[in-house]
Amino acid sequence: MARIVQKFGGTSVVDMEHIRNAALRAKAEHDSGNEVVVVVSAMSGVTNRLVDYVTSAGELCDDSEYDTVVSSGEQITSGLMALTLQGMGIPARSWLSWQIPIETDAAHGKARIRRIVVDELEKRLGDGEVVVVAGFQGVSPENRITTLGRGGSDTSAVALAAALRAERCDIYTDVDGVYTCDPRVVASARKLDKITYEEMLEMASLGSKVLQTRSVEMAMNHNVCLQVRSSFDESPGTLIIDEDTIVEKEVISGIAYSRDEAKITLVKVPDRPGVAASIFGPLADANINVDMIVQNVSDDGTSTDLTFTVARDDLDRAKAVLEERQGKLAYAQLVPDSNVAKISVIGVGMRSRVGVAQQMFCTLAENGINIQVISTSEIKVSVLIEEKFTEQALRSLHTAYDLDAP
Amino acid sequence: MARIVQKFGGTSVVDMEHIRNAALRAKAEHDSGNEVVVVVSAMSGVTNRLVDYVTSAGELCDDSEYDTVVSSGEQITSGLMALTLQGMGIPARSWLSWQIPIETDAAHGKARIRRIVVDELEKRLGDGEVVVVAGFQGVSPENRITTLGRGGSDTSAVALAAALRAERCDIYTDVDGVYTCDPRVVASARKLDKITYEEMLEMASLGSKVLQTRSVEMAMNHNVCLQVRSSFDESPGTLIIDEDTIVEKEVISGIAYSRDEAKITLVKVPDRPGVAASIFGPLADANINVDMIVQNVSDDGTSTDLTFTVARDDLDRAKAVLEERQGKLAYAQLVPDSNVAKISVIGVGMRSRVGVAQQMFCTLAENGINIQVISTSEIKVSVLIEEKFTEQALRSLHTAYDLDAP
Repeated sequence: MARIVQKFGGTSVVDMEHIRNAALRAKAEHDSGNEVVVVVSAMSGVTNRLVDYVTSAGELCDDSEYDTVVSSGEQITSGLMALTLQGMGIPARSWLSWQIPIETDAAHGKARIRRIVVDELEKRLGDGEVVVVAGFQGVSPENRITTLGRGGSDTSAVALAAALRAERCDIYTDVDGVYTCDPRVVASARKLDKITYEEMLEMASLGSKVLQTRSVEMAMNHNVCLQVRSSFDESPGTLIIDEDTIVEKEVISGIAYSRDEAKITLVKVPDRPGVAASIFGPLADANINVDMIVQNVSDDGTSTDLTFTVARDDLDRAKAVLEERQGKLAYAQLVPDSNVAKISVIGVGMRSRVGVAQQMFCTLAENGINIQVISTSEIKVSVLIEEKFTEQALRSLHTAYDLDAP
Repeated sequence: MARIVQKFGGTSVVDMEHIRNAALRAKAEHDSGNEVVVVVSAMSGVTNRLVDYVTSAGELCDDSEYDTVVSSGEQITSGLMALTLQGMGIPARSWLSWQIPIETDAAHGKARIRRIVVDELEKRLGDGEVVVVAGFQGVSPENRITTLGRGGSDTSAVALAAALRAERCDIYTDVDGVYTCDPRVVASARKLDKITYEEMLEMASLGSKVLQTRSVEMAMNHNVCLQVRSSFDESPGTLIIDEDTIVEKEVISGIAYSRDEAKITLVKVPDRPGVAASIFGPLADANINVDMIVQNVSDDGTSTDLTFTVARDDLDRAKAVLEERQGKLAYAQLVPDSNVAKISVIGVGMRSRVGVAQQMFCTLAENGINIQVISTSEIKVSVLIEEKFTEQALRSLHTAYDLDAP
């Protein structure tokens, strides 16, 4: 007997037929003698409609009222899921965040879970009842409904799995797992059987939008065994687990890319202590996140070129912040460039293997692709290249690292 | 300064434009220095869609899950109303039943309100905040969402008005008041300025579907001054108040009709004590409500004909119950007839005036309309006639009782 949390995303509960299919998966676990917690998102499209209502209600937005409105989507699905399970002869009931309760802080729209009271849920699970939880929401210290941010149902599921010490947390979605690369770009991409939390975090933060980054962090912190799998077929998904549990580690698990970056070069910045702080301080104050940074060696000992990347959406704001301070920063010219892509090879295996970065640089060079900026972490090497080379870079790297499907 | 409860029905909050119009009415009261409680229904159509979902979830219906799903409609409107008021510069917040709480029994789908905790609401009202309440719902002793039955937002509004000792409870709807007769049938029908609770109860129970009967009963019991008025124009509506408050009473306030009845005649029922009980007992056991009853005088001292009415929807079940017992009841024949209409003249003035019933009978006779069954109460005379005479009966009675608009 095991305790399983199953989370169904919006496309997996988009209508009653899909809800029935999802319920059958819960039933299968229940029939096998397992204790089952089902976490549901809103039916696909519902949250957007509710957000549209809120948006058209006026410019002033009280986040607590926003949460009151949009959380109703998951409330609806939770009741329908409980009813559907009951119709299949499975004892089930819906639980809203304030009924459990799932206690959060009062940061409406992006609340963080503080505590989940599990006593009653554990009793119900012990009695063979399926516990159906409305995802995405919590209740604030002021007894108001909070939401956990877009995609927060993943976080709800992982938090419940942690609090209930579940054996596994299955995330049912519209893709069947985590791939070595985006299969829409690299046809030979393979589904991974297993990936570590750290790798998944890098993949997620680089644009592989299978899981909300926060839910992966939480799973890592509480050692929750996550599985990403498809609602639409029976194939096994990808397990996201602790590094120690994976016996044979691949050097590289996957290659991610992002076209959401833009590059800024400040030409002839004075080369003196404190200059970096005087540039990046104002950007941080403007809530602009800087990712890759490279500072060239000074030619003449008095000035240097500084290049860095920001989110493409933040480019205009970043330019404005820096141009406003041109006098003080004393750079010669600001060169923006949003015609870039970031390519990252990710793998915990590179901790114990040398030459991973070298192979990346060689492969790109062989393909005539110029590297503009490089940044590395313990399990990742990222490079910035011209955007038009994205597909070519991904495919050639996928082959070079032996990731192609047999 | 007064304390006002405003309730907006589904057609009054059907989209954001209507919600804004409704909010303007709340703003007007607030701007006049009044304390304002706004009770909202679900946006018209939303509840039906939610009910459809629940229905298609399976035949087994757990009423508590039903309530979880359908109550979300009012939750959405309450948040949108609060946001809209805030956008107009009016401090406002939404309140869900479990946040107040509005405590009910556990009779899901038709719960009765036991207690409303008003301390915090009174504090907020005192601070000038508009209190926006999601109608139609409460919270059970088991901490689950309950609903009060279709149209239950009226009940929510009246219960809040009673608990908060509000000066007036305005029910905004898609009609502009209570009329002397259905204006779709009788073109000369007049809007009433005032009507007593008792008269309104008779009107409501006879098919004038302006207000849920239960909300009128509750208003009468707690002496809440109700006003029915239109969301769509500025005309004053109809006040529903205590009889003592109305100085000049009309003899007849209105004429109601219902086509929802059916007649059953049992021919040659043995004329002996206990026969009525042996007929109506099984019907009551089958939860079939019997309305008008007439028993003819026995011709021969041994048998009689018995005629009564039931809701048209119950006719088949009533027939089945009685036919099953034909041997025991020993009637000769059962004659069903759903081709009937019930016409009622209503007025508290008839307590002190004679001849009201006589005038009804004469008017119908002059029009060649046969009366099949008669029943009377203190403030009402009802007759059953052939359905095709409905319009003719209503119009001629409306004129005979001097109700026509000048």
